[in-house]
Amino acid sequence: MTAKSQQKPNSLFMVLSCVKMNGYACKENFTADDFFFAGLSKPGLTNNTFGSLVTGANVQKIPGLNTLGVSFSRIDYAPGGLNPPHTHPRATEIAFVLDGELEVGFITTTGTLYSKTVKKGEIFVFPKGLVHFQKNNGKVPAAVIVAFNSQLPGTQSIGATLFAAVPPVPDYVLSQAFQIGTKDVQKIKSRFAPK
Amino acid sequence: MTAKSQQKPNSLFMVLSCVKMNGYACKENFTADDFFFAGLSKPGLTNNTFGSLVTGANVQKIPGLNTLGVSFSRIDYAPGGLNPPHTHPRATEIAFVLDGELEVGFITTTGTLYSKTVKKGEIFVFPKGLVHFQKNNGKVPAAVIVAFNSQLPGTQSIGATLFAAVPPVPDYVLSQAFQIGTKDVQKIKSRFAPK
Amino acid sequence: MTAKSQQKPNSLFMVLSCVKMNGYACKENFTADDFFFAGLSKPGLTNNTFGSLVTGANVQKIPGLNTLGVSFSRIDYAPGGLNPPHTHPRATEIAFVLDGELEVGFITTTGTLYSKTVKKGEIFVFPKGLVHFQKNNGKVPAAVIVAFNSQLPGTQSIGATLFAAVPPVPDYVLSQAFQIGTKDVQKIKSRFAPK
Amino acid sequence: MTAKSQQKPNSLFMVLSCVKMNGYACKENFTADDFFFAGLSKPGLTNNTFGSLVTGANVQKIPGLNTLGVSFSRIDYAPGGLNPPHTHPRATEIAFVLDGELEVGFITTTGTLYSKTVKKGEIFVFPKGLVHFQKNNGKVPAAVIVAFNSQLPGTQSIGATLFAAVPPVPDYVLSQAFQIGTKDVQKIKSRFAPK
Amino acid sequence: MTAKSQQKPNSLFMVLSCVKMNGYACKENFTADDFFFAGLSKPGLTNNTFGSLVTGANVQKIPGLNTLGVSFSRIDYAPGGLNPPHTHPRATEIAFVLDGELEVGFITTTGTLYSKTVKKGEIFVFPKGLVHFQKNNGKVPAAVIVAFNSQLPGTQSIGATLFAAVPPVPDYVLSQAFQIGTKDVQKIKSRFAPK
Amino acid sequence: MTAKSQQKPNSLFMVLSCVKMNGYACKENFTADDFFFAGLSKPGLTNNTFGSLVTGANVQKIPGLNTLGVSFSRIDYAPGGLNPPHTHPRATEIAFVLDGELEVGFITTTGTLYSKTVKKGEIFVFPKGLVHFQKNNGKVPAAVIVAFNSQLPGTQSIGATLFAAVPPVPDYVLSQAFQIGTKDVQKIKSRFAPK
Repeated sequence: MTAKSQQKPNSLFMVLSCVKMNGYACKENFTADDFFFAGLSKPGLTNNTFGSLVTGANVQKIPGLNTLGVSFSRIDYAPGGLNPPHTHPRATEIAFVLDGELEVGFITTTGTLYSKTVKKGEIFVFPKGLVHFQKNNGKVPAAVIVAFNSQLPGTQSIGATLFAAVPPVPDYVLSQAFQIGTKDVQKIKSRFAPK
Repeated sequence: MTAKSQQKPNSLFMVLSCVKMNGYACKENFTADDFFFAGLSKPGLTNNTFGSLVTGANVQKIPGLNTLGVSFSRIDYAPGGLNPPHTHPRATEIAFVLDGELEVGFITTTGTLYSKTVKKGEIFVFPKGLVHFQKNNGKVPAAVIVAFNSQLPGTQSIGATLFAAVPPVPDYVLSQAFQIGTKDVQKIKSRFAPK
Repeated sequence: MTAKSQQKPNSLFMVLSCVKMNGYACKENFTADDFFFAGLSKPGLTNNTFGSLVTGANVQKIPGLNTLGVSFSRIDYAPGGLNPPHTHPRATEIAFVLDGELEVGFITTTGTLYSKTVKKGEIFVFPKGLVHFQKNNGKVPAAVIVAFNSQLPGTQSIGATLFAAVPPVPDYVLSQAFQIGTKDVQKIKSRFAPK
Repeated sequence: MTAKSQQKPNSLFMVLSCVKMNGYACKENFTADDFFFAGLSKPGLTNNTFGSLVTGANVQKIPGLNTLGVSFSRIDYAPGGLNPPHTHPRATEIAFVLDGELEVGFITTTGTLYSKTVKKGEIFVFPKGLVHFQKNNGKVPAAVIVAFNSQLPGTQSIGATLFAAVPPVPDYVLSQAFQIGTKDVQKIKSRFAPK
Repeated sequence: MTAKSQQKPNSLFMVLSCVKMNGYACKENFTADDFFFAGLSKPGLTNNTFGSLVTGANVQKIPGLNTLGVSFSRIDYAPGGLNPPHTHPRATEIAFVLDGELEVGFITTTGTLYSKTVKKGEIFVFPKGLVHFQKNNGKVPAAVIVAFNSQLPGTQSIGATLFAAVPPVPDYVLSQAFQIGTKDVQKIKSRFAPK
Repeated sequence: MTAKSQQKPNSLFMVLSCVKMNGYACKENFTADDFFFAGLSKPGLTNNTFGSLVTGANVQKIPGLNTLGVSFSRIDYAPGGLNPPHTHPRATEIAFVLDGELEVGFITTTGTLYSKTVKKGEIFVFPKGLVHFQKNNGKVPAAVIVAFNSQLPGTQSIGATLFAAVPPVPDYVLSQAFQIGTKDVQKIKSRFAPK
C-alpha cells in the first residue's frame, strides 16, 4: 500500500553497491551472520618471535563487508612484544587501546617520527601508507582494536618483506640498501627463515 | 648522504594529502598530539531520554584525521538504553562491543531487517547510509567502539530529525507520512522538545 | 588510413569503463536502445496511500548506465499527495518541476529544516544522504523529474523502513525511539501493513 | 533532551562535506535559496547561429551544489536547431525531453555512432567524455532537461574549440587534421569569428 | 616464525585490489611478465596519413595493470607529422619528449589555447578530457612517452570521430556544426574513408 | 555567434576542477609554462651513497598538475647504483627505461617477489603501496622515466625511514624488528647519518 519506487521486491543485492573485488564474490543472499564476526573476542596467542599477533576482521572473514570500505583488526602484545614496522598499502589506520599501554609511532615521507605513549581507552592515528609500529614496554599484556578505511587493507611487515620474500630479494640489494655486509644480510635472513 | 627525492626537507604537509574540507583547516605544523585523542577512555553519561550517549573521535577532535577518511565513536548504553534508529549519510559503520550485550539491526532499501544479539568482543557491520539501531536489553551497562570510513560521518537520528527539526517539519507532513493524526504528531513533537 | 591508436577494432566495451556492479552484468554488445528509456513519458498512478508514485529510470531499466554514475526518476503527486520523508544512501538528488507546485524540504545533520515552495520549471537540491520530502499542497496534480549522481541511488522511506520491515523492528525499539506507547506503535504498523 | 552526538550545535557546515573546488567558496551560512534555482523555467533564446541555447544550473548558479557532484542544464532548440558535437570533460549526461522531438547521438572511442530519435518524456544517455550532439529535425521548437554527475561538467564544443580558440589553433594543424586546404580552414574560422 | 596477520598464505590476489573492469578479467595467478611490456621499445611506423602513430601500453597489453589506474603510450612522429586534435575521456596525460621537438597545445573549456614548443627531455601536461594535439615541425623524427592516470584512457580523434564514424554522422549535422556546405563535408569524409 | 553555454567568458579556473590540496594553492591565472617542466632533461648526479638519484616532476614543480592526479620522476643510476627498497604511499608507478638495463622487483603483501631484468624501451609496473627497488647491475649508467597516478605520490625509502628518522626510531624497536643486536642497529644508523 505504500508509495514506493518500482523496484524488484525483496531483492537483497540492493543492500550493497556490490562489486566483486579483491577476489571476493558478491553474495546475493545475505543473512545477519554475513555482517557478524566473533573472532576478535579472545586475545590472540603471542608466544612467537615478536611477541605480538594481528587477527583480522576484514572481508575475508565478514562477507557482508564486500564493497563497504572498512574493517577491523585486533592486535595482542605480550610484555615486551612488538608489532614491527610495517605499512598498509591501501588504508589509514586508527587504533583504540583495549588493555595495557603502548609506545606507538609513524614516520612521514620527509623522515619525521611522530611517537606517543598511549594507554587504555586512548586513540592514535597512522596515516595512509606510512611506516608505523607499536611496542609494549609494560610488564602486562596489551591489546588494541584498530580500524581501516578498506575492506582488506593489506600489510607489508618491513623485515619479513625484505628478508623473507620468496624468491628472496638478492643479498647484494639488501647489503647496499642497509649499508651492511652480505654476511649481516644472511644473518638477518636466517632469523626470518621458517623453523 | 642518502639518495632521496628532491623534496623540500622537513616539510610536514607531505604527511597528508591535505585538503580543507568539512570546514577544517589543513594544518601545516603537526605534532604527535594532533593524531591522538583521550576522550573515549571514560564511559559517557547515559542519564538522558534514550539512556545512551555517542561520543565522537572524528576530525573535530583529532586534527590529524583531516583528509584521512576514518574515525571512531564510543557509544555507552544504560540498562534498557537505546541508540535510536538513525543513518550516517557519509559512511559505513563497524562496531566492536567493549562491554555488555546489545540487540543490533539495520534495514535494507528493500525493507528487510537484519538483526543479531552481539556480546563483548563481537563485531557487527552497518552498511553505508542504511537505518540502524542498537538496544541494550541487559541489566548492566553496555559500550561499543565503532569505526567509520569517513573523517566526519554525520548522523541523522530519525526521531529527532523529523520531530525536533528547527523550523519544524509541518504536522500535516508527519501526519500523512506516519498515517497518524495531527494530535499524535504533536504528542511526539512534545516528547522531543528541549526541557 | 588514419593514425589511430592500436586498439581492437570495433569493440564496444570501450564505450564504458565497465564493471559488474550492483549485480548488473557488463554488456559487451550495446545498441542505442541500451541508452534509451521511454518509461517516464506518462504520469505514474497515484491512487495509493500517499498519493504519489516514484518511477525509476536507473541501471535496472537502462543497461547502458552501468558504471556511469547518473540516473533519473519521475515522481507524480495527486493533489494532497506526499512523497514521504526518505533518504537515498548513495546519491545527491536534484529536482526539476515538470508540472504543478510542491512544498519541498530536507533536514541537515544538525537538525535544521531547509524548505521552499517550488513551481513548474524550478529546481531544488537534496544533499547526499539527508532526509527529505515533497508535498503537493495544490489542487492539481504535480510531477518532477529528479536526477541522482548514482546509477542506482537506493531509497529508504522512513515510515515503511521502520514500521513495515520484514521481519518487523521490535515494538519496544520503536516505542522508545518515538517516545510513544506500544499500542501507538502497533497502530502505525497496521497502517503500513499490506492490504 | 535527546541522546545526540557531541557536535557543535546549529553549525551549517555539516550539511555538506565541504571543499572549495572549481574556485567556489565553501559557504558556511546557507539558506534554502542556496539550493534553489528558477533560471530554467523559461525557454532560452535560440535566434543564434546554431538555433540552440544551453542554460546551465550548476554550482555557478546554485551555491549549495558545491561538492555535491550533480547539476542540470536546459537546452532549447529552434526548428532545425543543432546543439553541435561537443564533449563534457568531467561528466556523463542523461537527457529527458521536455518538448518536441530530437535526433540524438554519441560516438564511441572505437568510432561507432549510437543514435536515436527521442520524443517528449523519453530519455537518452551520453557516456562520460564522448562526443555527442542533438538535432531538432522537427517543425516545432524542442527542449530537454539534462543532468550531469558533476557540479560543473564543462563543455567543449568541437567547432568552436578548434576554429575559434584564442590564440588560434594554427591553420596548418587544422588543415592537416581535417585533410582540407588552408583556405578551407580560414573559411570555417571566419564563420566562428565574433560578429 | 614471524608475527604476521592471519591471511591465506601465498595467495596472489592480494597483490591488487582486484576488480574485473573494462572487460578484463581479474587474474589470480600473476607472474612478473604480467607487469612487463616490451612493445614500446621500437619506434612505430609513421608512413600514414598523419605521419604519426600511437602505440598503447595499457591494460590491454599489461594484465597486471588491472585496477591500478595508470598506463603509458608511445607516440612517434615523422617530420611534419601530426597527432591530430583528440581527447581522452577518462584521463589526464603527461608527456616526456624522447626525441626531437614538438609544438604541443590544449584548449580549455573557455576557449583558450595553451601551447608551447617542447624539446627532448621536456614535459607537458594535457588536463583531463580537454582537446589537445602535438605537431612535429622539425626535419627529424620525434617521439614521446606519455602517461595517463587510467589503465585504459580511451581516445577520440576529433576528425575521425566526426567524419569516419560507422554508421556515419549525418552530413547535415556536420555541415551545420562546421558552417560548411554538404559538399565540403563529403570531401572531408572521403579523406577519412578506408583505402 | 556560437551557441555556447552561459558561462563567465575567459575564466581560466574552469581548466581544472581546482582544489587546494597538498598545500598547493589553486592558481587562477595559468600560462602554458604552468603545464611545462624542463628539469628532467639532464641526468641527475649519482655520486652519492646509493649511486642513484630521483628527480621529481610533480605538482611541486608543475603548478598546472594541481588536482590532475598524475606526475613523472626521472631516476638515474650509476653502474652498480641502487634505488633502494621503498614505497609510494599514494600511487602506483609505471617505469619506462630510457637507457641501460635494470633489475627491478616488487614484493606483494603475501611475501612474493616479482622481479625482472628490463632494458631500454621496456616497461615495468610497481603496484600501489608495495615495496620495490631498481638495481643497475650493468657497466654503464642507466635511467628511467616513471609515472605515478598521483600529483605528489610521496616516497618512503625503507632504510632511511627506519634508520635516519628525526627523532630516531628507538634502537630496541629496530633491534627487535630485524632480529639483530643494538650494536648492529647503531652501525646501520651511523651509515645513514648526515656527513
